[in-house]
Amino acid sequence: MGNTFGKLFSVTTFGESHGEGVGAVIDGCPAGLQIDESFIQRELDRRRPGQSSITTQRKESDRVKILSGIFEGKTTGAPLTLFIANEDARSKDYSHLAETFRPSHADYTYEKKYGLRDYRGGGRSSARETAARVAAGAVAKLLLQTAGVEISAYVSRVGDIEAPPYSQLDLTKTESNIVRCPDAATAEKMIALIDQVRLDRDTIGGVVTGVIRHAPVGLGEPVFDKLHAALGNAMLGINAVKGFEYGSGFAGTRMRGSAHNDPFVAEGGNIHTRTNYSGGIQGGISNGEDIYFHVAFKPVATIMQDQESVDRKGKAAVVSGKGRHDPCVVPRAVPIVEAMAALVMADFLLRDRCSRV
Amino acid sequence: MGNTFGKLFSVTTFGESHGEGVGAVIDGCPAGLQIDESFIQRELDRRRPGQSSITTQRKESDRVKILSGIFEGKTTGAPLTLFIANEDARSKDYSHLAETFRPSHADYTYEKKYGLRDYRGGGRSSARETAARVAAGAVAKLLLQTAGVEISAYVSRVGDIEAPPYSQLDLTKTESNIVRCPDAATAEKMIALIDQVRLDRDTIGGVVTGVIRHAPVGLGEPVFDKLHAALGNAMLGINAVKGFEYGSGFAGTRMRGSAHNDPFVAEGGNIHTRTNYSGGIQGGISNGEDIYFHVAFKPVATIMQDQESVDRKGKAAVVSGKGRHDPCVVPRAVPIVEAMAALVMADFLLRDRCSRV
Amino acid sequence: MGNTFGKLFSVTTFGESHGEGVGAVIDGCPAGLQIDESFIQRELDRRRPGQSSITTQRKESDRVKILSGIFEGKTTGAPLTLFIANEDARSKDYSHLAETFRPSHADYTYEKKYGLRDYRGGGRSSARETAARVAAGAVAKLLLQTAGVEISAYVSRVGDIEAPPYSQLDLTKTESNIVRCPDAATAEKMIALIDQVRLDRDTIGGVVTGVIRHAPVGLGEPVFDKLHAALGNAMLGINAVKGFEYGSGFAGTRMRGSAHNDPFVAEGGNIHTRTNYSGGIQGGISNGEDIYFHVAFKPVATIMQDQESVDRKGKAAVVSGKGRHDPCVVPRAVPIVEAMAALVMADFLLRDRCSRV
Amino acid sequence: MGNTFGKLFSVTTFGESHGEGVGAVIDGCPAGLQIDESFIQRELDRRRPGQSSITTQRKESDRVKILSGIFEGKTTGAPLTLFIANEDARSKDYSHLAETFRPSHADYTYEKKYGLRDYRGGGRSSARETAARVAAGAVAKLLLQTAGVEISAYVSRVGDIEAPPYSQLDLTKTESNIVRCPDAATAEKMIALIDQVRLDRDTIGGVVTGVIRHAPVGLGEPVFDKLHAALGNAMLGINAVKGFEYGSGFAGTRMRGSAHNDPFVAEGGNIHTRTNYSGGIQGGISNGEDIYFHVAFKPVATIMQDQESVDRKGKAAVVSGKGRHDPCVVPRAVPIVEAMAALVMADFLLRDRCSRV
Repeated sequence: MGNTFGKLFSVTTFGESHGEGVGAVIDGCPAGLQIDESFIQRELDRRRPGQSSITTQRKESDRVKILSGIFEGKTTGAPLTLFIANEDARSKDYSHLAETFRPSHADYTYEKKYGLRDYRGGGRSSARETAARVAAGAVAKLLLQTAGVEISAYVSRVGDIEAPPYSQLDLTKTESNIVRCPDAATAEKMIALIDQVRLDRDTIGGVVTGVIRHAPVGLGEPVFDKLHAALGNAMLGINAVKGFEYGSGFAGTRMRGSAHNDPFVAEGGNIHTRTNYSGGIQGGISNGEDIYFHVAFKPVATIMQDQESVDRKGKAAVVSGKGRHDPCVVPRAVPIVEAMAALVMADFLLRDRCSRV
Repeated sequence: MGNTFGKLFSVTTFGESHGEGVGAVIDGCPAGLQIDESFIQRELDRRRPGQSSITTQRKESDRVKILSGIFEGKTTGAPLTLFIANEDARSKDYSHLAETFRPSHADYTYEKKYGLRDYRGGGRSSARETAARVAAGAVAKLLLQTAGVEISAYVSRVGDIEAPPYSQLDLTKTESNIVRCPDAATAEKMIALIDQVRLDRDTIGGVVTGVIRHAPVGLGEPVFDKLHAALGNAMLGINAVKGFEYGSGFAGTRMRGSAHNDPFVAEGGNIHTRTNYSGGIQGGISNGEDIYFHVAFKPVATIMQDQESVDRKGKAAVVSGKGRHDPCVVPRAVPIVEAMAALVMADFLLRDRCSRV
Repeated sequence: MGNTFGKLFSVTTFGESHGEGVGAVIDGCPAGLQIDESFIQRELDRRRPGQSSITTQRKESDRVKILSGIFEGKTTGAPLTLFIANEDARSKDYSHLAETFRPSHADYTYEKKYGLRDYRGGGRSSARETAARVAAGAVAKLLLQTAGVEISAYVSRVGDIEAPPYSQLDLTKTESNIVRCPDAATAEKMIALIDQVRLDRDTIGGVVTGVIRHAPVGLGEPVFDKLHAALGNAMLGINAVKGFEYGSGFAGTRMRGSAHNDPFVAEGGNIHTRTNYSGGIQGGISNGEDIYFHVAFKPVATIMQDQESVDRKGKAAVVSGKGRHDPCVVPRAVPIVEAMAALVMADFLLRDRCSRV
Repeated sequence: MGNTFGKLFSVTTFGESHGEGVGAVIDGCPAGLQIDESFIQRELDRRRPGQSSITTQRKESDRVKILSGIFEGKTTGAPLTLFIANEDARSKDYSHLAETFRPSHADYTYEKKYGLRDYRGGGRSSARETAARVAAGAVAKLLLQTAGVEISAYVSRVGDIEAPPYSQLDLTKTESNIVRCPDAATAEKMIALIDQVRLDRDTIGGVVTGVIRHAPVGLGEPVFDKLHAALGNAMLGINAVKGFEYGSGFAGTRMRGSAHNDPFVAEGGNIHTRTNYSGGIQGGISNGEDIYFHVAFKPVATIMQDQESVDRKGKAAVVSGKGRHDPCVVPRAVPIVEAMAALVMADFLLRDRCSRV
């Protein structure tokens, strides 16, 4: 259990790294939505391994196939099923991991929880599962487009290399470089750092920033399903994520209320806030300002070095780095962050339809 | 909707700041749990307003009453209802707020979402609702005690005043001072800062750290309901929270994998990790190490100063600070963080009962 | 678990026969609904014990109190809590039942499932819990009124005494007699039968028929949450119910398709069906015709006679009839059937808001 | 929405009559369950069209493929996905139905609810979807086998041809004839009736009886999720079902309590009931006796005759019978009833793991 996300726009993902494939069933997508299959594919291409010199060199084409829920190009109200078959599954690459636990991976906990584990490439715990999220998220984006909501994300930090705040950036430039940082100068430094880390046979962490624009006022379901709580839940459920903050975040805790409060102002009949420490959400409900948040990704656990560990019997063992992995996960995490944000926003857009008589 | 938390240990809270009271219905508490009503009351007393010089001076006795679900001192498997009647509800204090929106409060968003709002003390958006969470969390703690799980939290930072890492602290000292920081020297500085802030008619933010000890290996339900995602969701749902991180958190994003990975070691037949950057959770599942996390609280939005705002008609207005409020919320947030952590852990303890045939 | 009903209009009931009281929390009632408290009370009065000579003579005033969720007479979007305090709780009446299991009651199964039981008046398994449903159902009715949906139920059979089909009845006459059968001649016979049964210190079963008029086309969520499946689930969850059928029901199984199919006809621009064996639901979705269904109630298990049973240790024991009970439950079940139907319809009315883009 | 069934053993089905195929994702199947793929296939073969002279002559091989969730023959705790590709999809057979509504089908309601419909073979409303249920139910049966629970169903009535009560039947004989009635003499008459009905180009309804043996005491989650309410919900969600009753059912409503109550008796240290009008469930919880219930199926709506109807514009139209359909659905409904019963029982078996501390 735990593989379904969302209350009304409800997505169940399935599949493992080295099984038949990964997929998603969306139950609750409203009928009549035009599905642009090529858009879903483009989103998947952004997450695909082997897309650039700074990602894993594994080759997977990640072709999406729609198994159900569409008629004459539109959703019918029936469950929409998206499937991405696995390719290039070199299961033998992983047989040496059947008996040992990789440090800071899910090997040990899966084995203890379930009594057995699919050790091939991490099985269900593999980040390959996120392909299904990206596909489902693309459908959510299509739904959000009908309401004018825009979702974007970018790499805001790699190690200690940090981009300027989002409000100073042109987010349409995110895809202009392979690290997905809209600031060209910062991007160059990030790429150089990742290259160095890869040469060191190591990995490094970073931060992805998400920005949601033009969300209508009123999305969020307090007291437990506050909009930012749902966004945090969504982001923390992505592999390798260690933290989430929105608006002023952790930095805001150092401020005084008199500086932190966002004064309301009326501009041309519309109510806005002069500042936006609130991050577009007040009392758990969107207030019409930009929603922005930061997602912390740890360094990838798979490194090309020998590491100390134990085997299934509790004896000391060495885990050697093998396979083709990302030295830094954040460039490929950008579409995943967007996808999860889209799933949240689509769900809350529907939930808000029931707020009033 | 959005007022129920947890899948199996499922808590629905209700009530407003100035209505009859607040309460919680727990559906799914296993039968046969001995309920120590005085323990629930003690937890509520830790959250109660007016408990010290650095909290709001509102006087509320917050007496819990059990309305259902108990027979001869034990849970019966029926819903357990906890109710805390409101007292000292000076509704007139708030009548001036009927027409204006307090900056960085939920006034504006509630009105826009629901079309009307209970403006008395924030209504449902008031932190008074968290009394119900603390009461329910106390029951969760009693359940967790039967499994040996220990939940604790403390104030780790106020503004820029920061305590040493939790591993260097004696957490049994948390209640020894009014700011709830187990390090006496740091506590003293924190209290001085809060006193100064109050004299300045201002507020300040801070951080609460949670520590969960002796959680069994195996709690967490990937891929979406990872243990830390649920904890993050729970914490972000608390009023005034702006961020959540666990284990190495945001700082971990600056590290390399070779330094960040936690090597497994076998000690006396048990498998442990030498370091704990993972924060006791790997792949979304508890690994038996300490679970620790940080929760960022913004400065309280209610300040004793005049603030720029607008009224319901979109005209400029001034909001004046009135009433009795906390200059810093974190001391009283400690039991709330513990309660939410307990609700998560109780739920996942039950969910894990179905992991294996 | 199992005490929450409905996905969007979500009702959690709590309370026992001899505790503080029973109540319901409604999470998901849209904001802005005018709440007529006296209407809720009238609905409760229809369910109240002691209302006539053919019901139990227990006296309970069943006064409803709204604990949360209302501001200036309207729902606010916050959870709406309804509470009915217990009175006349003669707990000693039941002490003799602590050690034995009443036949065809829930005593044995509750004890085996939960390991203990509140034996006072059946505890949570008491039909007293349905007072909470009636209160919540009254709110659902108010919501449905805004959409023009009408819910009614009546007693269509007691033992072998049966009323004509609903289409031949004037349902506004239901409350004109104490047995709640709109056909006066049948009602008279039913009352006489119940009187006789009571004199025999026995009980008898019967059928309640529900009719839902003016439901919009389109309510129902296939494939699992078909409208009639949800209605069936709702009715079967009422104490003492043994069966549910809608439209042609069990009798329809004897028919041929050529006779059973409902031809579509166009009348004044509107599409209708000439017959209504479908019971207003096709493919699990309302089609605009009357929705009608039958609910089977077994004879009340508590009889004023000695009965063979066993005690908690598995030894033979005699259970003697004591207390004040209904000789036939269906007259008081009418408002409960209506309430559960209203909860279903309110939920599906909201769910349908998300059917289309 | 509405395509997920079960709280812990949670099944989401997808797919349409004439799309790529139908399938099911099971989230919450405990890890370590040995999956016998050939058993799943055998269950599907029992539901398969074209299996005998009294079913539709459409030929579909209905081969199941497991897409995820299995490793070395066992469930891993990850979602288990079962997929059955469509074959023999003669979409053109249905093009004539694009513009008219078949009487007593879901054509009209789907179009009105969703604004469009996949008219090819009924799309999502086709009984083809139940293949996914049978596959998922087979997995549930495997789980139930580990607890000793046995699920069986059979045809107890076709039109007016009725089998003796289940207690007089040898249920192992169900598969010995094509109508799936364990009583050979009754079966013969049923087959003759169905043959006649087919020759008449008509259809006929019937009843399937389900029997669940060796369920442990304690399954069921009052007050709303009573075991029989969940069974009723499950059965009513099957295409063409019009009614559900368990134990004494509608007939029990004619009885007196003194005759209907089931006396408890102690046999060899075990507590049983002398009679079983309760149908193995008391207070919504299994009591260890046989659980039995009856499911009413209407005559199939598709008949080989011209029928009066309207088109999408509300004009009178004639629907002609085409294609290959079942003259009576109950023989093929038997494995579907079993599957749905198995899904309920598996879910409640898991839910009961959390009943006690």
